[in-house]
Amino acid sequence: MGPDPAVAAVRHAVRGALASLPPGAMVLAACSGGADSLALAGALAFEAPRSGRPAGAVTVDHGLQEGSGARADTVVRVLTGLGLDPVGSVAVTVGAEGGMENAARNARYAALDEVAQRFDAAAVLLGHTRDDQAETVLLGLARGSGTRSLSGMGSSFTRTCSTPERVATVLYQRPLLELGRATVRRACLAMGLEPWDDPHNDDPVYTRVRVRHEALPVLEKALGPGVAEALARTARMLRDDADALDELAEAAYADLTASEQAGPTRGGDGPRALVTLRLDGLGDLPRAVRTRVLRMAAIEAGSPPGTLAAVHVDAMDRLVTAWHGQRHVDLPGGLRTFRRYGRLLFGPA
Amino acid sequence: MGPDPAVAAVRHAVRGALASLPPGAMVLAACSGGADSLALAGALAFEAPRSGRPAGAVTVDHGLQEGSGARADTVVRVLTGLGLDPVGSVAVTVGAEGGMENAARNARYAALDEVAQRFDAAAVLLGHTRDDQAETVLLGLARGSGTRSLSGMGSSFTRTCSTPERVATVLYQRPLLELGRATVRRACLAMGLEPWDDPHNDDPVYTRVRVRHEALPVLEKALGPGVAEALARTARMLRDDADALDELAEAAYADLTASEQAGPTRGGDGPRALVTLRLDGLGDLPRAVRTRVLRMAAIEAGSPPGTLAAVHVDAMDRLVTAWHGQRHVDLPGGLRTFRRYGRLLFGPA
Repeated sequence: MGPDPAVAAVRHAVRGALASLPPGAMVLAACSGGADSLALAGALAFEAPRSGRPAGAVTVDHGLQEGSGARADTVVRVLTGLGLDPVGSVAVTVGAEGGMENAARNARYAALDEVAQRFDAAAVLLGHTRDDQAETVLLGLARGSGTRSLSGMGSSFTRTCSTPERVATVLYQRPLLELGRATVRRACLAMGLEPWDDPHNDDPVYTRVRVRHEALPVLEKALGPGVAEALARTARMLRDDADALDELAEAAYADLTASEQAGPTRGGDGPRALVTLRLDGLGDLPRAVRTRVLRMAAIEAGSPPGTLAAVHVDAMDRLVTAWHGQRHVDLPGGLRTFRRYGRLLFGPA
Repeated sequence: MGPDPAVAAVRHAVRGALASLPPGAMVLAACSGGADSLALAGALAFEAPRSGRPAGAVTVDHGLQEGSGARADTVVRVLTGLGLDPVGSVAVTVGAEGGMENAARNARYAALDEVAQRFDAAAVLLGHTRDDQAETVLLGLARGSGTRSLSGMGSSFTRTCSTPERVATVLYQRPLLELGRATVRRACLAMGLEPWDDPHNDDPVYTRVRVRHEALPVLEKALGPGVAEALARTARMLRDDADALDELAEAAYADLTASEQAGPTRGGDGPRALVTLRLDGLGDLPRAVRTRVLRMAAIEAGSPPGTLAAVHVDAMDRLVTAWHGQRHVDLPGGLRTFRRYGRLLFGPA
């Protein structure tokens, strides 16, 4: 008799991730003690020895809840009991910058980076499921900020970490991204592992929690079953689209720009680049590429990416395609852009 | 004292649409008698004479509800009372093909095409609002079929109509697509027009009605206000993306294909094209472009677009990028594709 189908599915997914890594390389599972990452750790503990790789795990104590230290100790015991070795536990201090969820994520990844380097791991596996992906797409939809924000999470990504000693790149993989949360939870229980339910996962103060418990169930009811799957499929396609268009925009930007260092700005926050784009080539680009080039130029000139909105991009585009004497467009970060000598110039206002 | 701000907004939008049309050209409003299209007709009746254009209207009686004929007569009286001239009313017979909503839409547009030609109109204005757009995006999301289905409705489009006498192109415009439904309804009432509430708009048997009354309000609650606006903004950006990528794919397809007529297929449903794509160039394309080229080739070879799913496209893509001896990929419509002599061939299975 084979394993439970849910267990087989999770193991199969982890096996696929391992196969993409160099033989003999150390792999870590990031594990909160929740059902998803516990199933991931269980599957890694099963698959890694069979593929001739050492496998460990790491848990991060965010220190945000009473008893989180004891909680982390329990997770370490469970992970060690699975046969994973080494198992690391890192306590982090979560700041407030960019909101609590954001600060917690930044602190978590910094800790994972550090442990991955300390254990010389080839990859860190994350337990995100297809349902997490669907939630991410809906959150991106609410921002209305285009293809990239709708394209959700990638199946893998790298982070570059600079320490005084060296620059290292850490590879992260999400082997469970095509599996439904229900399957992964079933696998966790079928492996005999007892998941910890983070009370934050039910606290409607978090937008993601409201998306999970309110928005997605109602969407399933209105649109029919399979919405999470459709959202995840959409994310994958939009990710391809965003990659292709970003690549085209980068090539067009390199072709159309001539950049020179300007002097220090009045704010004294270092020199800014004065960016110029040739108008002739710009007008010939498809709008999807042109708007990306305009965004890149504004950011290169010093406009903060987070504050550059569709309304700014539209106004810049009208300077190119519907010019009837507009003097300039004001941009976030004390910048403006204007036409001069057949070029679009970006500089301090 | 100026007009109500909602009335001003609707008139401003209609004025913009009129300005894009040739001077003196006849413009029609398509009007169901509902608040959105009634406000549209009211604004057109106000703006058209001021821009020196004749303006009429047309209402379509779908014959799907008791008393729809009398209803259409009432709408004609209201439209005539607004000063619109000519005003046409067309009764259509709605079939069942592709579902009732689909069949009603097809019958409606065929009737509008016919009236537009009869009145020699330069454009037909449609009353779709930003909320209709948001619903369309969510419906596309549920299908999970990529950028184009998420990109909603365009602000204008053309339909080509062939009659035995001539081939004509009818231009449709959606001037209210950037306005919220609440604004447009307020404008309708402020114009002193009494809207008709189609009971179909509240019947939860329709997916669109469930999206409107269940999904969108819950999304607003979970994600914060402005979801409809974000969805509409997303649609606009994705439409640009889809246009750019489709254009690139068409150019790549023309470059990579060589097409020749094959003999009649066994099914006897006419000759099919045998399509071939050069593998060398195909592998170098970004995935977003390559998958579009593969879809185009499959459709050109006779695969019905509606049944060609992401799973088929992914399997075709693996023939190109991850070939390890797969013999062929079966496609809907009794077709298959396989590698031969450095090409990908599409033909009858």
